[in-house]
Amino acid sequence: MSATIALEPIGVVRSARDDPEPDRWGGPATIELCDRFGEDALLGIEEFSHAEIVYYFHAASPDTITYGARHPRDNRAWPRIGIFAQRGSSRPNLIGCTIVKIAGREGRALHVRDLDAIDGTPVLDIKPVMREFLPHNPVRQPAWSHDVMAHYWDVPETPDKEAS
Amino acid sequence: MSATIALEPIGVVRSARDDPEPDRWGGPATIELCDRFGEDALLGIEEFSHAEIVYYFHAASPDTITYGARHPRDNRAWPRIGIFAQRGSSRPNLIGCTIVKIAGREGRALHVRDLDAIDGTPVLDIKPVMREFLPHNPVRQPAWSHDVMAHYWDVPETPDKEAS
Repeated sequence: MSATIALEPIGVVRSARDDPEPDRWGGPATIELCDRFGEDALLGIEEFSHAEIVYYFHAASPDTITYGARHPRDNRAWPRIGIFAQRGSSRPNLIGCTIVKIAGREGRALHVRDLDAIDGTPVLDIKPVMREFLPHNPVRQPAWSHDVMAHYWDVPETPDKEAS
Repeated sequence: MSATIALEPIGVVRSARDDPEPDRWGGPATIELCDRFGEDALLGIEEFSHAEIVYYFHAASPDTITYGARHPRDNRAWPRIGIFAQRGSSRPNLIGCTIVKIAGREGRALHVRDLDAIDGTPVLDIKPVMREFLPHNPVRQPAWSHDVMAHYWDVPETPDKEAS
């Protein structure tokens, strides 16, 4: 139960965003698969509208990881919440999981929108979104979570640099 | 981009299921957090109806991992599809991500339904499901994916053993 699990990135995020500011993730990004994969690793993904991206918050400092509870974004206007009841990046194992819109594919590159990961982020997995894997009944969530997400998917006005 | 990432399980799955047969995952399961976490790591999760569980397919053999394309479930009735365009377990990094229904919490134990992981599976992360992280527009997927999922969430009739 406590044995270390060693993973190798399968790709990397290329994006105009290189600041981890916690809002305005609604822009474009590209995931480039590592050289050891062929183009056929993505064969057929364009038949799906969405994919789930599993990635590693490589820029987070291990010193800031929360193992218990904290106020989301350290904002005391919101209640103190367990790290596994919020989605902040400073969490054990530093794993992010986000559903993105698939915008196209070119060889080993997958173009997406709505990926909340900065340029250079290591990608651990890509999975297609099937309706059967979405919630089977209505989603209930507390009010603070809607407040946290109010501007999360806004489109950035001035990218830091051109996407590569 | 190719540096190894070392992760530690945050908990383990307790379930009546210990066979990896690929259907009938609609039963109950429990995630027990490791001893190094306090109960406050799950504080407030009961205000959410669903959680996303990130786990490790520990029972899969590394020899069977697909890095290119394959027929889902090795069934030639379905097209050959890239490993990142399907959700089979024999994939690079052996990561599973599933949205479950939260059934309750007792201390460091989270009771859930619809977790497609066998007894003893190491858990890497737990995240609450927020509507803002679900697809923002209609989901499109190919016909074969509906066929694969036809009996995935059926409830097992005869559990192998009692859940611990």
